[in-house]
Amino acid sequence: KTDEQDGQLGAGTTKTMGNFKGHALPGSFFLLFGLWWSVKYPLKYLCRKNKSACYLGSRAGFQRLEFVEGIIKAAFALIGMVAEQFVPDGPHLKLYNYEEQHWDHLMNWQHATMYLFYGISGLVDIVAHGTNTLPVAVDRMVLSLAVFIEGFLFCYHLHGRAMLDVHVHQLLLFAIFGGAVCIFLEVFFRGSIVLEMLRTSLCILQGSWLWQIGFVLYPPNGSPEWNQMDHTNMMFLTMCYCWHYAFAFLILAVNYAIVSW
Amino acid sequence: KTDEQDGQLGAGTTKTMGNFKGHALPGSFFLLFGLWWSVKYPLKYLCRKNKSACYLGSRAGFQRLEFVEGIIKAAFALIGMVAEQFVPDGPHLKLYNYEEQHWDHLMNWQHATMYLFYGISGLVDIVAHGTNTLPVAVDRMVLSLAVFIEGFLFCYHLHGRAMLDVHVHQLLLFAIFGGAVCIFLEVFFRGSIVLEMLRTSLCILQGSWLWQIGFVLYPPNGSPEWNQMDHTNMMFLTMCYCWHYAFAFLILAVNYAIVSW
Amino acid sequence: KTDEQDGQLGAGTTKTMGNFKGHALPGSFFLLFGLWWSVKYPLKYLCRKNKSACYLGSRAGFQRLEFVEGIIKAAFALIGMVAEQFVPDGPHLKLYNYEEQHWDHLMNWQHATMYLFYGISGLVDIVAHGTNTLPVAVDRMVLSLAVFIEGFLFCYHLHGRAMLDVHVHQLLLFAIFGGAVCIFLEVFFRGSIVLEMLRTSLCILQGSWLWQIGFVLYPPNGSPEWNQMDHTNMMFLTMCYCWHYAFAFLILAVNYAIVSW
Amino acid sequence: KTDEQDGQLGAGTTKTMGNFKGHALPGSFFLLFGLWWSVKYPLKYLCRKNKSACYLGSRAGFQRLEFVEGIIKAAFALIGMVAEQFVPDGPHLKLYNYEEQHWDHLMNWQHATMYLFYGISGLVDIVAHGTNTLPVAVDRMVLSLAVFIEGFLFCYHLHGRAMLDVHVHQLLLFAIFGGAVCIFLEVFFRGSIVLEMLRTSLCILQGSWLWQIGFVLYPPNGSPEWNQMDHTNMMFLTMCYCWHYAFAFLILAVNYAIVSW
Repeated sequence: KTDEQDGQLGAGTTKTMGNFKGHALPGSFFLLFGLWWSVKYPLKYLCRKNKSACYLGSRAGFQRLEFVEGIIKAAFALIGMVAEQFVPDGPHLKLYNYEEQHWDHLMNWQHATMYLFYGISGLVDIVAHGTNTLPVAVDRMVLSLAVFIEGFLFCYHLHGRAMLDVHVHQLLLFAIFGGAVCIFLEVFFRGSIVLEMLRTSLCILQGSWLWQIGFVLYPPNGSPEWNQMDHTNMMFLTMCYCWHYAFAFLILAVNYAIVSW
Repeated sequence: KTDEQDGQLGAGTTKTMGNFKGHALPGSFFLLFGLWWSVKYPLKYLCRKNKSACYLGSRAGFQRLEFVEGIIKAAFALIGMVAEQFVPDGPHLKLYNYEEQHWDHLMNWQHATMYLFYGISGLVDIVAHGTNTLPVAVDRMVLSLAVFIEGFLFCYHLHGRAMLDVHVHQLLLFAIFGGAVCIFLEVFFRGSIVLEMLRTSLCILQGSWLWQIGFVLYPPNGSPEWNQMDHTNMMFLTMCYCWHYAFAFLILAVNYAIVSW
Repeated sequence: KTDEQDGQLGAGTTKTMGNFKGHALPGSFFLLFGLWWSVKYPLKYLCRKNKSACYLGSRAGFQRLEFVEGIIKAAFALIGMVAEQFVPDGPHLKLYNYEEQHWDHLMNWQHATMYLFYGISGLVDIVAHGTNTLPVAVDRMVLSLAVFIEGFLFCYHLHGRAMLDVHVHQLLLFAIFGGAVCIFLEVFFRGSIVLEMLRTSLCILQGSWLWQIGFVLYPPNGSPEWNQMDHTNMMFLTMCYCWHYAFAFLILAVNYAIVSW
Repeated sequence: KTDEQDGQLGAGTTKTMGNFKGHALPGSFFLLFGLWWSVKYPLKYLCRKNKSACYLGSRAGFQRLEFVEGIIKAAFALIGMVAEQFVPDGPHLKLYNYEEQHWDHLMNWQHATMYLFYGISGLVDIVAHGTNTLPVAVDRMVLSLAVFIEGFLFCYHLHGRAMLDVHVHQLLLFAIFGGAVCIFLEVFFRGSIVLEMLRTSLCILQGSWLWQIGFVLYPPNGSPEWNQMDHTNMMFLTMCYCWHYAFAFLILAVNYAIVSW
């Protein structure tokens, strides 16, 4: 049991540090994408509105951007999958330990599965925007499924953990499933700036909350651990989650203002 | 524990009175907005239908109204946040009590967080209807999120209370989440009079039910308390909730009739 | 407690018969409406398709039908409300028994509340189709709310009953909430024959299942009672529910075939 | 109790083999339909896009295909229903065992009910695409209801089984209800290639997962049984489910590529 948890991200030196990184690294990716989207979508919207003032943007330019995004997504996912497999205490593609008759490093495999779907989403982006054999809306559908499967695997992750641990991950699920629904709606209302900004805000929320989870569950630098059973801690974190979302709004607003200048 | 509950609205002289006000004041705001909407939307609809007979209404006039609404919403939210913080037994911006090692006045902070999102919604209204850099539909999206977050914080509010207390708040959640879904639909079906009237009715329902909660949980003037464990009380209140909704319909109908004259 | 259950429909001579009628009477109303709709909507659809062959149907003719439907709905609802109040062992408008300090005949009041919303829906139909001050889509919205509130009150009805009793009522809730969602969709996709036929089938299902509930819980003519705790009974009834739905499809198909001749 | 489980598919020689077949047979049907759809829908989409290059496809050609599909669906459903009834240890149309006072072979009846609704869906397909009295969108609505009812009966199937057994069937429900929602959306967004491919992928997933369930719960060829209570088995299967879905994507992609050549 402890083996699995040790291997959660693996590259760290101690279990605690490893787990902190295990939340901070994907959190950074989500933040990165969220920040990038918070620049891209306002730009796209404003370009569509007044075409003359826009030096960047033919439709083709933005399609190329989505193509590049797909490559980056697929690359990140590939790196993630390889890292989960081949870190020193990873499974090295071994799924079942025949000697001891148990599954091997299931956590790493589960994370690799999550990355796999983001990788598929990246590949679909590349094909849909690089060629024109594929209907364009497929990219949103597959991204929606990738996010949904992330949430789905998270749901079955939480069994038998402490109350606070479960609670912070449950809060994360709101951002994940909210995001999946939002992207699914984009299949039908493609190019709606409102949905794109909702998605961006939920992506930033997910990223910053993953950092917060890291700080709460694996406090770095020897700060004291949080009391897992204290009810007021739970209430504070629920509220804190809302503040993260307000913060995501703030970032969106600032970037929107900068772009519109 | 009792500290937090004392501070729930704070300005009152005794705990009971304070809590009654704590439900009646936001209830009044919702009722006010509901009543105002029950006049505004029929007016808008009837103006659009026969343009000649309407002395009020160019499109620009209604946009100015939404601008003013945003200012009022933001002002109320600011007042609410300041009041929650600086009432005599409020937190005064102190979040953590370092001496006694516990969170300070979490209830007030939670209420302030609710108001914060209504404030953001008000600000977005101001920007979206005052300038035209922002897509107009963003106002509904942010309002929908504000209502959703109100319901979200309410959900994690109810832990460990008495049965009747939980029940009346749960009933409130129907109005809140119903409202959030309705406003979210307005992002896509903007200006649909049917959705606007649904939203208005749910807003009036929320307002009048907050008053009802106040009367049930903190009966003023020394009337006897309700038996929290009596099952028939619960059944009556469920029914009473429906009557409140019928009453909201009545108000809508009367205002619609007056306006159409 | 037994008083309330006695008074459930009231006109019957014995408790069992009364309760059987209490399910059979509303069931008949739903069946009646379902059967009428299963004729009306195919007729309307086929009239719209080939206008020449249709001797019935200008648009105005169908609007008059909806007007008449509204009157019938409102009349049934009024009769239902009056019957619930003034049957020999009904509440006679008395809500609270001050002598014995408990609520009086809550079941009758709850049923009257259900009828009240159908009555409101009938009134809105009359106004929306009789005059043209009201937007037409409001009739569907209010009907959807009436059906939703029926389901809502049912939900809080079932506390503390036997397993089989709860199960058959839960199955009913699928038809009720399914109907509410379907009618809500009609607000946006008005006149969609597919949704209208879905609604019709769910209405017939609700009617025939109410009859079935009557036969299961209060077997008339002295047939033996069902074992409330037998798990296979539950499995059979789940399946039986599906057969009722297949039967509703059959009725729809036959009526559609007759109409199209 | 064991009688019912014995009779689950019935044709097998031993209980274990019978149950393996009971999952593999319907699984094969779903796989077959999924594979066929993964060829048909890309073909249809590409034909619509460049009409000249397409030797197959007038609109009428595809309508005839749907007609034939309906016949096959109805035929499979009829065979399934007859097989469930008349296998050696089936119910032979006897529903109630009057001597022993219990329901007879409820499992077989339940499976027959599932097939019944697929049969109805097949019949509706035949009528809707063979004649033009019926609105075309009805075929999707009825298919959606058939899939929904499959899921509905599954839900009430799982009571009182072992943890792993419940878990693998619950995972199946995601594919079933996801499929039902997707087909329901197709009523309104008919011909959307994205929804059609989502449906196809969920259909393949359902088929391959039914095979997987067969291998997990009734391992053929005397391989050892899975430990029903081991938590890591559950985690592995959740992950495995995602791999099945990735595999469904792969099939779709390969077929799409072949077709577009």
